[in-house]
Amino acid sequence: MMKPLVQLLAVEASPPSLQDNTGDLDRLKKSLLPQLAGQLPAVPFARTAAVAESFRRAGFKGLAVVNDLLTGPELVDFLAAPPKVLAGVALDLGTTHLEATLVDLVSGEILARADRANSQIAFGADILSRIHFAVKGDGLLQLHRAVIDDINHLCEELAAELGLELVDLRGIAVSGNTTMVHFFLRLNPYHLCREPYIPLVNAPDPCHAGDLALAMHPAAVVWVLPSVGSYFGGDLISGILASGLDQAEQTSMLIDVGTNAEVVLGNREWLVACAGAAGPALEGGVARMGMRAGPGAIEHVALDAKSGAFRCQTIGNEPARGICGSGIIDLVAALYLGRIIDARGKFRRAAAGDRLLATPEGPAFVVVPAEEAGGGRPVTIGQVDLDALMRSKAAMYSILTTLTNQVGVGFADIHRIFVAGAFGRHIDPRQAITLGMLPDLPLATYQPVGNSSLDGARRILLEQASRHRCRQLVQKITYIELNVNQEFMLRFSGAKFIPHTDHTLFPSVPFFGE
Amino acid sequence: MMKPLVQLLAVEASPPSLQDNTGDLDRLKKSLLPQLAGQLPAVPFARTAAVAESFRRAGFKGLAVVNDLLTGPELVDFLAAPPKVLAGVALDLGTTHLEATLVDLVSGEILARADRANSQIAFGADILSRIHFAVKGDGLLQLHRAVIDDINHLCEELAAELGLELVDLRGIAVSGNTTMVHFFLRLNPYHLCREPYIPLVNAPDPCHAGDLALAMHPAAVVWVLPSVGSYFGGDLISGILASGLDQAEQTSMLIDVGTNAEVVLGNREWLVACAGAAGPALEGGVARMGMRAGPGAIEHVALDAKSGAFRCQTIGNEPARGICGSGIIDLVAALYLGRIIDARGKFRRAAAGDRLLATPEGPAFVVVPAEEAGGGRPVTIGQVDLDALMRSKAAMYSILTTLTNQVGVGFADIHRIFVAGAFGRHIDPRQAITLGMLPDLPLATYQPVGNSSLDGARRILLEQASRHRCRQLVQKITYIELNVNQEFMLRFSGAKFIPHTDHTLFPSVPFFGE
Repeated sequence: MMKPLVQLLAVEASPPSLQDNTGDLDRLKKSLLPQLAGQLPAVPFARTAAVAESFRRAGFKGLAVVNDLLTGPELVDFLAAPPKVLAGVALDLGTTHLEATLVDLVSGEILARADRANSQIAFGADILSRIHFAVKGDGLLQLHRAVIDDINHLCEELAAELGLELVDLRGIAVSGNTTMVHFFLRLNPYHLCREPYIPLVNAPDPCHAGDLALAMHPAAVVWVLPSVGSYFGGDLISGILASGLDQAEQTSMLIDVGTNAEVVLGNREWLVACAGAAGPALEGGVARMGMRAGPGAIEHVALDAKSGAFRCQTIGNEPARGICGSGIIDLVAALYLGRIIDARGKFRRAAAGDRLLATPEGPAFVVVPAEEAGGGRPVTIGQVDLDALMRSKAAMYSILTTLTNQVGVGFADIHRIFVAGAFGRHIDPRQAITLGMLPDLPLATYQPVGNSSLDGARRILLEQASRHRCRQLVQKITYIELNVNQEFMLRFSGAKFIPHTDHTLFPSVPFFGE
Repeated sequence: MMKPLVQLLAVEASPPSLQDNTGDLDRLKKSLLPQLAGQLPAVPFARTAAVAESFRRAGFKGLAVVNDLLTGPELVDFLAAPPKVLAGVALDLGTTHLEATLVDLVSGEILARADRANSQIAFGADILSRIHFAVKGDGLLQLHRAVIDDINHLCEELAAELGLELVDLRGIAVSGNTTMVHFFLRLNPYHLCREPYIPLVNAPDPCHAGDLALAMHPAAVVWVLPSVGSYFGGDLISGILASGLDQAEQTSMLIDVGTNAEVVLGNREWLVACAGAAGPALEGGVARMGMRAGPGAIEHVALDAKSGAFRCQTIGNEPARGICGSGIIDLVAALYLGRIIDARGKFRRAAAGDRLLATPEGPAFVVVPAEEAGGGRPVTIGQVDLDALMRSKAAMYSILTTLTNQVGVGFADIHRIFVAGAFGRHIDPRQAITLGMLPDLPLATYQPVGNSSLDGARRILLEQASRHRCRQLVQKITYIELNVNQEFMLRFSGAKFIPHTDHTLFPSVPFFGE
């Protein structure tokens, strides 16, 4: 059932009289009681005069704006007439990219979308370099302001699209990794990257847009999805909400892959999670020819068994300009199946032939020749990129085996594997299995959950049950720290082959016996 | 049982580790659960970073500072070592005068006292003129700032006396009339003095000292005693708390007299209240020779039956400089009993003799001749003062009769009459009965409750039960508006005699039969 983070409650109170001299605000609060299950709403000091005066001006009749906080209802405004839209913003606060939707808090509909690069990139491309930047001088303040500015631009864009004023934005739900949430709330991230990796706060209490100078109504409620640890953030909790992992009888798994691979395993009885560095190989924009999943990015590659040619499918069917995360996995799987690389991920010179170029950074394989490419130069993949991918895929598989092993669950016992994020949207599990990145399970086991981070934020805006559920969830999750896990390090070495040093683990993948 | 508004809760948490990676703030909140009956405390946004960082700096061991709000506990600080004093301020926010005590929130002891004239007097001597001032230009802001400045001076004085820093002041409970509370909270008082006399808010939610720029810790909780109507303020609710009127089986009455007379009648089953203008006659500092109850003020007057001389007792036994509220009642009773004034409160020239002076404002009676007085000039009472007192005493009695009549309670049914405020501390009920101001009941019926406004604020600081009780109280009180009450107007005319037109109502008072 929908119970939004912010609600409009219709009020028609009898006007004050000599016989009924209740104060204006007290009258309003009292008349809301039946709609608030008998709970008197609190009014923040900054809104006391405004709410009481609006109520009187409106003739004691209209719509109360009530935030649903964890501590109970909070009355923040009174409107004489219904607003054009009671608007909330769902925000996926990513390290490289911010994505937001404007949600109608009455109908639940998504009315507009906007996205934007994270301008914190100017202070550091990755999370770690930003943490280092944050702890020097006013670094934290600069990073905080950068992300607030980005969000404010998104708010302005979304409001403009609907013809709304900024004060019409009444709530925001924020789903992001733990470090981004620290920057957003101006919290010192110093300990996030230092053993034992402790956040300042995992589950911050809701606050108001005014506290953060967000371009919204000052009393708009800011609801941040809680995190479980430094490397397991609210974006993953969103994934759990979206997948229903925590409510299912059967054991399932949720995987999110980026620079970090984050995994949660469990069912309605128990949840275990871990995260580990997967390296940047799978992040579009990091590999040399890599790019974000935009027009011209190769997203799928297949090897024509007969001709030995690569058939590349690009986003928007435009001439290829680079390779995005899912394309790289397809490509490397194809290189392996075409025997152009060996089980260690090294080019086999004889097989590669004249498509192998010598570059200052070592050999590179031409995927799309310059004359067919969009940028006027060939799209290539280098040995350096392959090595990075080998580390990433080995890390991924080692994380999965370490986690399942810790709780004594075999891969075969896993009912469903949800794959979150951009990776999950585009990846072909078949090719990831070929590489030995994901376990060799029936393909139907794998299920993408899309941008579950954004979807989780939308749920927070609309569903009280989700708000309560995710606060309880984080209490329930047992987090295993992999950064110092010996077992993980051993498994990692064994996984740096295609598909694996123990190829019997991947019966569906051709083994060339080298 | 004492449960202060602000508590220090001892915490000794296990330090974070790879096996227990709970966030700092989450760890602190969790370790407070057993002491907070399982309720997770909220943390205001502005305190999030500070609390988490102090907790870590202190080695996860020390004292949490927790506010007890209506919505539940609120965690606002963390101390490595116990403070010198966990200090709260109890404030009586009077129209003419502010009085404050510094209370040790651990022991409950009062450690210091301070008082100060209300500097809003510069903008208007009485409430009504201040309301008019408030609604013009930035009048409200000026009045608000004046009272905040006064409170800040008191805070500085109290802190200095104990050698505390201002940030050591952790909470303040404020008891004042409805208009003063509006000024304090910067709320528009426009409707307070206009029919049907509706406050913007009767029961404001607690806020933080930082919201009001009070000279205390910014997260110090500000708890304002609720009011019942424009003319029945939190100072009276304090009186109810102090008297226990609302918890007694037998019906009792609480009277507070100032420019307004406020009365509440009832028992643990029901409570009825009203208030009415009593005129300024009983407020020291308003009558021509009146003054506040300070050194040299005549507080008691007795007529020597034989010599016909007035024996005046002054505060501090100093030469008389003026007359305070209780002194005026004694004096006029003595003038009546000495037959120097008649039943209508007019001077009987023959009896007054040469002690009656002619002044530009009419006849005035010399109470203390110049040579015996402290100020070098005689202390006198004029016909104008007498006329004002007659109106005040008539108003008072009419309020009491109207109220008891409305609920069908006779004076004889009243178990106890509590008399609040400065008036209650000093008045001799015998003389007030002689004037026909208070009903002719056994003197033991009357019981002073002292500065119950200040005492109520102290209770709010120390007792959770009182905080809950007073919020429930205001819901329970039926308020009768006298400003437009026809019965009251009729009774008022009848009461403008000493003791009353119907002298049989006052069997204990000599009736001279004029």
